[in-house]
Amino acid sequence: MKISIIKIGGNVIDYPEKLNEFIQQFSKFPGKKILVHGGGVMASRFGESLGVMPEMVDGRRITDKDSLDIVTMVYAGLINKNMVASLQKYKQNAIGLTGADGNLIRSVKRPIREIDYGYVGDIVEVNTKLISELLELDLVPIVCALTHDKNGQLLNTNADSIASSLATSLSTTHEVNLYFCFNKAGVLIDEKNENSIIPLINEDIYQELKKENVIHSGMIPKLENAFAALEKGVNHVWIGKAENLIFASKGKLSGTIIEKHRYDLY
Amino acid sequence: MKISIIKIGGNVIDYPEKLNEFIQQFSKFPGKKILVHGGGVMASRFGESLGVMPEMVDGRRITDKDSLDIVTMVYAGLINKNMVASLQKYKQNAIGLTGADGNLIRSVKRPIREIDYGYVGDIVEVNTKLISELLELDLVPIVCALTHDKNGQLLNTNADSIASSLATSLSTTHEVNLYFCFNKAGVLIDEKNENSIIPLINEDIYQELKKENVIHSGMIPKLENAFAALEKGVNHVWIGKAENLIFASKGKLSGTIIEKHRYDLY
Repeated sequence: MKISIIKIGGNVIDYPEKLNEFIQQFSKFPGKKILVHGGGVMASRFGESLGVMPEMVDGRRITDKDSLDIVTMVYAGLINKNMVASLQKYKQNAIGLTGADGNLIRSVKRPIREIDYGYVGDIVEVNTKLISELLELDLVPIVCALTHDKNGQLLNTNADSIASSLATSLSTTHEVNLYFCFNKAGVLIDEKNENSIIPLINEDIYQELKKENVIHSGMIPKLENAFAALEKGVNHVWIGKAENLIFASKGKLSGTIIEKHRYDLY
Repeated sequence: MKISIIKIGGNVIDYPEKLNEFIQQFSKFPGKKILVHGGGVMASRFGESLGVMPEMVDGRRITDKDSLDIVTMVYAGLINKNMVASLQKYKQNAIGLTGADGNLIRSVKRPIREIDYGYVGDIVEVNTKLISELLELDLVPIVCALTHDKNGQLLNTNADSIASSLATSLSTTHEVNLYFCFNKAGVLIDEKNENSIIPLINEDIYQELKKENVIHSGMIPKLENAFAALEKGVNHVWIGKAENLIFASKGKLSGTIIEKHRYDLY
């Protein structure tokens, strides 16, 4: 089976118009597909309205009990179910899931070292059998950024990590492509020029671009994650803007494709 | 397939200890099963903390946009996902669903007559194919009190109606028993005596008890609903306390069983 795993973040979810446009594009995306979403900004905003202030360390949320409840309500409830309902409108048989549903993604509570992240999960195991079965029923899984420890505890889990884990686990038995939508059009040669997208990156090019400081700071972990996914069997990783996703599905250059070794497109 | 559909309400959900006890009992309940839950009290309490006051007419919530968001967060998020995670602990492969997920339950927004109930759905169609497929995968569906109109709108829907609709729809192809857990031990001869449970009611007995005013007020719609379900093919309906559910599964008298005509138990 050929499976596309698409991850969207706050820059889409937090804007109803953008989200609606994305939902329509995603509906047209061909083949078997899985959508992964977080929703951090909306959760923070909602928590603040309840007097629960988000505590962040190095861009990562510290998830105490109250924050976990908020994240559960906002991710698995408000965002996930409204997306599912919208997708149903566009004839997508969407099914919303956390990692607890069907024991989809098991994680362990992150061990306390310098920082206690609270109810945050590091992924241990993906139930690829269930995902395959759901896809075979022509369902479209919409997975939010929550997992569980199989001991009754939900755990807040980074949506990028969920997308990567689903992709790498499924790639042992399926052909998987991974799409990360973020706030830039791709890896850019000139950060200020959205038209300077580097269409294709492999490890050699990556090392070169890093040396030349074209790729730096926040883009480095993104690409390291992408190469890690390729290493584990993912076919290709695409990064770009959500609004260009549909072009990517048609084989048009509309973001950056990250491949392992070879140059041939798709 | 023999399917048990079990509905729990606020008198279980709102008390963590009771809910935990119920989760353990439900885990031991044999055979294919579906859990249906609302969570009105928790949603009201949470809404109040946000300054959204619940508006009720004849015991039914008026669901404006803010209330719908709250219900979506509390039912589909907080309650549903924590129950799913708890059930996973007890080796139940639970999967949490709204009526939008997999187009499980389609409804229409209730037409405005004397009262505008807002975003409230009246059930039109149940996707029995999907439910059967999920049960065949050994999943345990946990369905919350939300449906959708297949046009992008989530709708707040009475949990009793969801349980009844699932039961009657599935009863055309399966043997279905329906269990309503509520705050009484069953239909009582003496309202003040929890030990005066009437073990078995059929239509003849029901008409008799109604005439004698043993069955009155709130119990009448409950029983009317039960007989309507039996009329549509449900095998039997049980009503009683959540903590006695496990005895019902073992064929012990622990609540009131409502049957269509005959007297023979189970």
